[in-house]
Amino acid sequence: MDLVMGNAIIGQSGGPTAVINQSLVGVVEAAKASGKIGQLFGARHGVKGILGEDFVHLFDEPADVLEQVAMTPSSALGSVRKKPTRDECLAMFEVMKKRDIHYFFYIGGNDSAETTHIIQQVAQDSGYDLACWHVPKTVDNDLRVTDHCPGYGSAARFVASAFMGDNLDNRSLPGIKINVVMGRHAGFLTAASALGRKYPDDGPHLIYMPERPITRDQMVEEIAAVYKHLGRCVVAVSEGIVDANSKDHLTFTEVIAKGNELARDTHGNVQLSGSGALGDWLMDQVKQALGGSIRVRADTFGYLQRSFPGVISPTDAAEARMCGKKAVEFALSGMGSGSVAMIRKPGPDYAIEYKPTELQNVAKETRGMPDEYIFEKGNDVTKAFIDYASPLIGELPPYGRLKGMI
Amino acid sequence: MDLVMGNAIIGQSGGPTAVINQSLVGVVEAAKASGKIGQLFGARHGVKGILGEDFVHLFDEPADVLEQVAMTPSSALGSVRKKPTRDECLAMFEVMKKRDIHYFFYIGGNDSAETTHIIQQVAQDSGYDLACWHVPKTVDNDLRVTDHCPGYGSAARFVASAFMGDNLDNRSLPGIKINVVMGRHAGFLTAASALGRKYPDDGPHLIYMPERPITRDQMVEEIAAVYKHLGRCVVAVSEGIVDANSKDHLTFTEVIAKGNELARDTHGNVQLSGSGALGDWLMDQVKQALGGSIRVRADTFGYLQRSFPGVISPTDAAEARMCGKKAVEFALSGMGSGSVAMIRKPGPDYAIEYKPTELQNVAKETRGMPDEYIFEKGNDVTKAFIDYASPLIGELPPYGRLKGMI
Repeated sequence: MDLVMGNAIIGQSGGPTAVINQSLVGVVEAAKASGKIGQLFGARHGVKGILGEDFVHLFDEPADVLEQVAMTPSSALGSVRKKPTRDECLAMFEVMKKRDIHYFFYIGGNDSAETTHIIQQVAQDSGYDLACWHVPKTVDNDLRVTDHCPGYGSAARFVASAFMGDNLDNRSLPGIKINVVMGRHAGFLTAASALGRKYPDDGPHLIYMPERPITRDQMVEEIAAVYKHLGRCVVAVSEGIVDANSKDHLTFTEVIAKGNELARDTHGNVQLSGSGALGDWLMDQVKQALGGSIRVRADTFGYLQRSFPGVISPTDAAEARMCGKKAVEFALSGMGSGSVAMIRKPGPDYAIEYKPTELQNVAKETRGMPDEYIFEKGNDVTKAFIDYASPLIGELPPYGRLKGMI
Repeated sequence: MDLVMGNAIIGQSGGPTAVINQSLVGVVEAAKASGKIGQLFGARHGVKGILGEDFVHLFDEPADVLEQVAMTPSSALGSVRKKPTRDECLAMFEVMKKRDIHYFFYIGGNDSAETTHIIQQVAQDSGYDLACWHVPKTVDNDLRVTDHCPGYGSAARFVASAFMGDNLDNRSLPGIKINVVMGRHAGFLTAASALGRKYPDDGPHLIYMPERPITRDQMVEEIAAVYKHLGRCVVAVSEGIVDANSKDHLTFTEVIAKGNELARDTHGNVQLSGSGALGDWLMDQVKQALGGSIRVRADTFGYLQRSFPGVISPTDAAEARMCGKKAVEFALSGMGSGSVAMIRKPGPDYAIEYKPTELQNVAKETRGMPDEYIFEKGNDVTKAFIDYASPLIGELPPYGRLKGMI
């Protein structure tokens, strides 16, 4: 029989995803099955729950409850956006010491990886024995090292489906339609708008990503050109697009706010989601430039992209579960601390292997779309992106046209 | 063998739905199967296509194409928002006469029923032999006579799912979240936000419908009270909510626009969708009243509600198909002109029968939520509404909580 090596704790952090609980349940299952973890504490609202000794005993949860939770979007333990100070780390170690906790799992994005890295470094400096493992999740897909992040496939499936439907809506009642998609620094989610195209004239006809700063005038000009050619235009815009005319490469959201205070979290991130301001501003710019008689509308997809139940990629769900299991496997193998990365195997068929990577490789900094995924004019994606992203979202719903309407 | 009684024409009109093509395919199938219709012309973009003689030959469409189109959201023939004049009606009869067309089918909401009624009346006055049948569709569910409208079940499924996910998101990262839902005069779609609740503290915690005018102050007060009690608050707001302080019972959207020109269609409807303005204004009101430190966000669900593929109620799809078939059956039975209504059979199990009703009963005017569906305080729905709407949306995705988090 295996010897119990200590107790463990897990938290969820940052913006939720549709499959973040798959990773949670993966950790619970693997930790229980290992026989090496005595107890697994679930911290309510991440590091806040550790500081407040606010715990759930995850080994007491029945298997059928865990399976239902795995299929439920959004962080089951509650989430938090908080970067701990050194003193807070030391306070957390006191809480852990009392409970013989020597394994720390944290499910989140780059900010959560930074939190994990900070905790790992303070533990090391202060001599507290703690293996710290970050389990990746983001809808933005902007983590370094990993081929893609759990959470992205389902959010991308939502965005691809949404544009598939909205393109049909726009074809039915023609005009100019602007849709704002999540993505602070990386265009991956906005790029997913292209994945539901089927016929040559299908939208989105223009895709604007944060990696390519652009001016208001250029956007309006490109939209007008598509409208002139097709009689309609569907535009995908990332919430993080950058104004090429601003000296400090500000996002349009910051430029529109004109120095008004924008909400920030303790990691320093400006609030971009949860407002229709960017979409409405773009709509006004297009209306002003093209005249009032053209039908122009803007929608901002908002939080639905990360929390919608029932639009979940099966591949994403399975990989998120496996990332949780692998974190436990790596932690118990005695290889110290790290993060789980998915590496795509070469070859024509989609396949992934799971590898550990050091925390500093994924903490804090993000990655954007590689150049080869962005069309040279900066307003669309390439076939390389379609090939990259298609296996991640699962099969899309049926979509057909009448022969007489092709 | 049946004798061919003439040719027929069909158009789609108004805002599309996720199942409007089910009705189209229902008409095509029933018309073909009857043996009494020689040809079925599909008019591109409704009455505009009739005036422009812009047609698709629907009997030439293969069965597998029709089946795929039926599952595809948004009007496959293209849509239009246009109220024809008497002269335009007469011009349409010239087009029809040339093609021996004596059956007119029009799929749409109350405005489209009005168009059908106008065409029927001008045909009668001018002695053109034309049976005019309206096939109901709206996401608003605001048609009179019928128990509910095809298109509502799927849009309601989208809204219920969206709130289920967004409530989980809000539970995970607490704050105040306002979601604006479609619905010009009727609160049915906003009310559907309640259908995904499972636990007593699940949102939406407040539901504001157009049937109950309210003041800004009262909304802010009620939101603050829920937030104080629960530490979070999810709010469902109809895009059509009416300012109780405005003399002419204007919508808040009109009040916020403060006399600025709002886009209108030829039926006189003001543009409410396709902008985040109402949500952002409400968010600002709450922020101003409650102070800057509380996390307040607003999303406007927009056109996704009516066009999202893959979130379709099976009941809604089947009923939409049947409404198309029944329109053909009624038209060929020689009962003149009319609209198809769904009547709910009494008894504990959900069942529908299809009846004809006169065009003037559904044209132009809409119906709102009956009083018995609205909670007496005007900020929630009743069990009677839940019982009414639940069978229409199909089974929702799984949603579970950890035992330790209930």
